[in-house]
Amino acid sequence: MPKSKVKREKPRERFSYDPTRVLTKLEEYGKRVLEDIKSGKNPYFDIPMRGLNNVYFDEKRRVIRMGDKLSRRYFLNVAHARKFMQTLLIMAYVKRLVSEGKHASLREAYYANKHTIPGTKENTFEDQRESDPIIEDLERMLGVLREEMHLTADRRGYIYGDIVIRDGEDEFNTSKLGMGGWAVPGTVEHLHFVEVNVDYALVVETAAMADRLIEEKFPKKEKALIIATQGQASRGVRRLIHRLHYEEGLPIIVFTDGDPYGWYIYSTIKQGSINLAYLSDKLATPEAKFVGMTMDDIKRYGLENVTEKLKGIPPNKKGGPTGDYKRILEEMEYPWFQNKEWQRQLKMAVKMGVRIEQQALANKSLEFVAKRYLPEKINSGDLLP
Amino acid sequence: MPKSKVKREKPRERFSYDPTRVLTKLEEYGKRVLEDIKSGKNPYFDIPMRGLNNVYFDEKRRVIRMGDKLSRRYFLNVAHARKFMQTLLIMAYVKRLVSEGKHASLREAYYANKHTIPGTKENTFEDQRESDPIIEDLERMLGVLREEMHLTADRRGYIYGDIVIRDGEDEFNTSKLGMGGWAVPGTVEHLHFVEVNVDYALVVETAAMADRLIEEKFPKKEKALIIATQGQASRGVRRLIHRLHYEEGLPIIVFTDGDPYGWYIYSTIKQGSINLAYLSDKLATPEAKFVGMTMDDIKRYGLENVTEKLKGIPPNKKGGPTGDYKRILEEMEYPWFQNKEWQRQLKMAVKMGVRIEQQALANKSLEFVAKRYLPEKINSGDLLP
Repeated sequence: MPKSKVKREKPRERFSYDPTRVLTKLEEYGKRVLEDIKSGKNPYFDIPMRGLNNVYFDEKRRVIRMGDKLSRRYFLNVAHARKFMQTLLIMAYVKRLVSEGKHASLREAYYANKHTIPGTKENTFEDQRESDPIIEDLERMLGVLREEMHLTADRRGYIYGDIVIRDGEDEFNTSKLGMGGWAVPGTVEHLHFVEVNVDYALVVETAAMADRLIEEKFPKKEKALIIATQGQASRGVRRLIHRLHYEEGLPIIVFTDGDPYGWYIYSTIKQGSINLAYLSDKLATPEAKFVGMTMDDIKRYGLENVTEKLKGIPPNKKGGPTGDYKRILEEMEYPWFQNKEWQRQLKMAVKMGVRIEQQALANKSLEFVAKRYLPEKINSGDLLP
Repeated sequence: MPKSKVKREKPRERFSYDPTRVLTKLEEYGKRVLEDIKSGKNPYFDIPMRGLNNVYFDEKRRVIRMGDKLSRRYFLNVAHARKFMQTLLIMAYVKRLVSEGKHASLREAYYANKHTIPGTKENTFEDQRESDPIIEDLERMLGVLREEMHLTADRRGYIYGDIVIRDGEDEFNTSKLGMGGWAVPGTVEHLHFVEVNVDYALVVETAAMADRLIEEKFPKKEKALIIATQGQASRGVRRLIHRLHYEEGLPIIVFTDGDPYGWYIYSTIKQGSINLAYLSDKLATPEAKFVGMTMDDIKRYGLENVTEKLKGIPPNKKGGPTGDYKRILEEMEYPWFQNKEWQRQLKMAVKMGVRIEQQALANKSLEFVAKRYLPEKINSGDLLP
């Protein structure tokens, strides 16, 4: 069998984590507020607006981007005062976290800043639904990731392959940890990639499939790093994928179930999401490619007997489209799926009315996915854009 | 601060994984079927019955146990023939897996064994809901874990602490993997514990709290192994807890949110579940203890301001009890909660109508849980049974 033609590319970004950057920005903003107060002005923050109105698809870079609409938040404005106070509270908290080298979860940040304002019955925060948006505001306002502010996201996912990571004082090879692999932490900003002895990274939706590939020694034979997302990719995993691609030149190949949920996982890794448009430059990897499962795989590999029916009502039936059908039709509208290959796949799915899972390949044999399916498709470049 | 009084105990079980045991049993059963056929008899399997009727609480060992009611499954019986065929198919599949040293997920096992019977339009399996129960039947019939048959469960959870694990050719210390920790695989049967330099294992419900304790260097300071379950404990994690307790003598201390879901997580780790009663001897750890969150913690640590309301209708209101209240009242009936301490906690929860999360401790300070809450409660033995 020919060696994989997928090779590392030239890195285009450098390790850029610098905790002092956040502190400098926070101090700038803090000083301006103080000066405004001293000179009798009404202090304010300019915060880029959230929502669809301030989001666009950057055709050149091929990522979802935030526009330049701003919303001004004043201290001396009855409608703004509470949020102004909350913004300052969280800014002070972040300053303390970063200065002390500590991290907090979103929930901890909420609990830590919830208190009753002395002399009143007013709480600073009533609910995490009040503190989370303030943190998003700060990401947009300061142009930094939540993780750079030491506010950690939920963690999920693990990796396995011949790369050496340095995390604090520890250095380890993620292919020397038995069947387990390395659990990806919530924050990956500070990681150093000491050695990268793989040709590409294969991002895998299900843990069962990742474990199959590990058992078949796929990572060693194909010089691949396995990244198991365990469903929708966590922010940590998405940032890790981005860093491995841009800082280490690793091509990213995504392997999900052939269904609207799997394609959405791919979509989020590739282009970012609308909610987090302002982070696309740091979280998205538009050069990622998709290996499967595709609708063509069903016929090509004789999997007709192991498809599953799509849920919901098809578009041409009364009451339709709903369920899976509705999601597929929505995906057909995504700017990054506006190409012949993806339109064809998505149309086929609606027409055939079926989905096909990664694990359905076990119908051929357990080895099939590692010995034939993936090497065949990856080496011949049979990938979707 | 005094050193932790919690110490390792004398081991009571030995490493017992022996892949040949399953093979021997499968061969015995297979031979009997073959002999029956040769001598013109109607072959059958005797399978311990599932369901509440065949489950009891063993007061002495304090685990949920399977009774001795059997159900006989014949080949020559129209009502049994399909299941008999399926049982044999899965048995043959397991034999191949174990002989070849391979593992398969439940989903792979389903897909691998789904085919159309030649000359008919009949499929061997129509749905995974047909194959999963057959696998459970085999666990009960053979008295082995699914994992011993090389059928792996969903994986979830990670560990961090000064223990050295050998998994195949790899040997690693789970406290030397940066902030990530070691991702617990679906199957932990084959792991060897080479060195165990901790006094106890702290099982933690949320990843955010586990990460807090790692950041605070709690595992090193308190000589503890952190086991993050990330919600309900996976089978792999429950088996790992069991093995660490019985083979390595590690006391198990569980730390969850103070709510019906958290108490249920504790309950499952401690006593096993009704569905898997036949596995309690291998999955449950009845000696596990509970450190928090408790209802008493709210007043003792001044957390009144950071409780959350229980969901649902209380028992004394019209339409009640529903939601959280209903679950708490159900938990009050569990045999292992029939003691003064737990009845008091559960009654208090219903009366106060609130829940308290682990992360609410961040209201004191980020360090509070690691420097005061846990050491204070664990060292003074302030644990629930």
